[in-house]
Amino acid sequence: MSISIRRTTMRTRVTSLRDGAAHARGEILATEEPLEVRAAGPGQEPIRVAVTMRTPGHDFELAAGFLVTEGVVVAGDISAVAYCEEPEVQQFNVVTVRTRLPFVLGSAERNFFATSSCGICGKAALEAIEVRCDPFPSVGHIDAATIVALPDLLRARQSLFDSTGGLHAAGLFDGLGQLSVVREDVGRHNAVDKIVGAVALGAPLPPEPILLVSGRLSFELVQKAAVARIPVICAVSAPSSLAVTAADALGMTTIGFLRGDAFNVYTHPERIRFEKAA
Amino acid sequence: MSISIRRTTMRTRVTSLRDGAAHARGEILATEEPLEVRAAGPGQEPIRVAVTMRTPGHDFELAAGFLVTEGVVVAGDISAVAYCEEPEVQQFNVVTVRTRLPFVLGSAERNFFATSSCGICGKAALEAIEVRCDPFPSVGHIDAATIVALPDLLRARQSLFDSTGGLHAAGLFDGLGQLSVVREDVGRHNAVDKIVGAVALGAPLPPEPILLVSGRLSFELVQKAAVARIPVICAVSAPSSLAVTAADALGMTTIGFLRGDAFNVYTHPERIRFEKAA
Repeated sequence: MSISIRRTTMRTRVTSLRDGAAHARGEILATEEPLEVRAAGPGQEPIRVAVTMRTPGHDFELAAGFLVTEGVVVAGDISAVAYCEEPEVQQFNVVTVRTRLPFVLGSAERNFFATSSCGICGKAALEAIEVRCDPFPSVGHIDAATIVALPDLLRARQSLFDSTGGLHAAGLFDGLGQLSVVREDVGRHNAVDKIVGAVALGAPLPPEPILLVSGRLSFELVQKAAVARIPVICAVSAPSSLAVTAADALGMTTIGFLRGDAFNVYTHPERIRFEKAA
Repeated sequence: MSISIRRTTMRTRVTSLRDGAAHARGEILATEEPLEVRAAGPGQEPIRVAVTMRTPGHDFELAAGFLVTEGVVVAGDISAVAYCEEPEVQQFNVVTVRTRLPFVLGSAERNFFATSSCGICGKAALEAIEVRCDPFPSVGHIDAATIVALPDLLRARQSLFDSTGGLHAAGLFDGLGQLSVVREDVGRHNAVDKIVGAVALGAPLPPEPILLVSGRLSFELVQKAAVARIPVICAVSAPSSLAVTAADALGMTTIGFLRGDAFNVYTHPERIRFEKAA
């Protein structure tokens, strides 16, 4: 096996079975590397918060987005983001997010972990996001035809998927279906964190924002969208029970099985205008 | 939205767009609930190691498999697994794994985290598993035709996928393609942990074991298979760069894009016998 390293992809040789016969050929793999996320307030030594396996690229957004969506840091409190400057460190795999206020690692524990001395359950997880996020007002109308068009718009911008044949993606759209940010990653949570981080670091949140994810819709993704103030989430595959329960409580619209000309709305369908779909 | 709770699935109502028209109908969702994994030696108070979002079912296997694959506990050291007995705790969401030797949480940090003061990178992650896992000897031959048949065998046993339309699955097979354990979960790592846990808790590891996962193949899944002593991993979708690098170093065979009559072998193709495929 020989591998030559590029930033987001790697070339390799494979033995491929096609039509009953084996032959050797080249393939391109999505890069997976650990990223260590650190945080520090003014004058503080950076503190390690987490290590995530990710596809390199948009690392500052990933670090900022991760800290914001996990409730560790508030977007407006970020003053700078930088790769590690210590010479002995693998500098492009360590990112430090600087905050204006002193940083306390204690807040890095997810809120619902803290409740677990008296039991953990979906309800506790739900209450934890409800504490952090105001429910969304039920405003705006998005045409069903706009929703149906989103997957092709995202797919057309997935450059790493095209070369590797399989990578998660997330896209941020406005309410008319205009695509503003696309991010790809081996981890689907990372793809969403990169989008949230892009907004946290200054990209404008579009009007009537819609988030589209390439895979399933988990509780964690609903939580991330809620923190980022995106009230509509669409997924190509199925949502989980807790994703739906959380979205319902927060006033968010969740759409699943968005494929071809069809989709299901699991929560708050009042935001979707079906008349124009036909 | 009304939801009635069952153990692994939940019923809900959706607004479904089909053929340009919206109509209401019932749908079944995969349950997602947090599971807190605790560990304790003889006479020790249980210590919280992690919380994972999972689909209930096979919780003891998930807890044991998680601790074993993360290198926190050795399979042979497990003496008992139980739900929490404190009355105030959400008892079916808290599992304690009891060990024969005293349990020390310090070992719960992933090995490559510990090296991050001098930088983290794929190489460090790789070295960490190499320390924990002996490379696999290159023995055994598996027919390509056996590999090609695996996805349909797994699919036929995915009962939750059938009802929910989307859930990760992992299957443990022997070298002749006989399926011994199937596990499903909203998290693909959990599905693999449940299989590893089944073996850790006494299910026999079949001869020439093969692991099949329904999605992509990440470094973490290769690591879990290595710890469980499964030398062949197949995935329906693409592997990552670090999954391939790790498997190559450990002497493991990785197969990706296993669909229809075709697949790619990324590492150690010497275990696969191609002549019989046609």
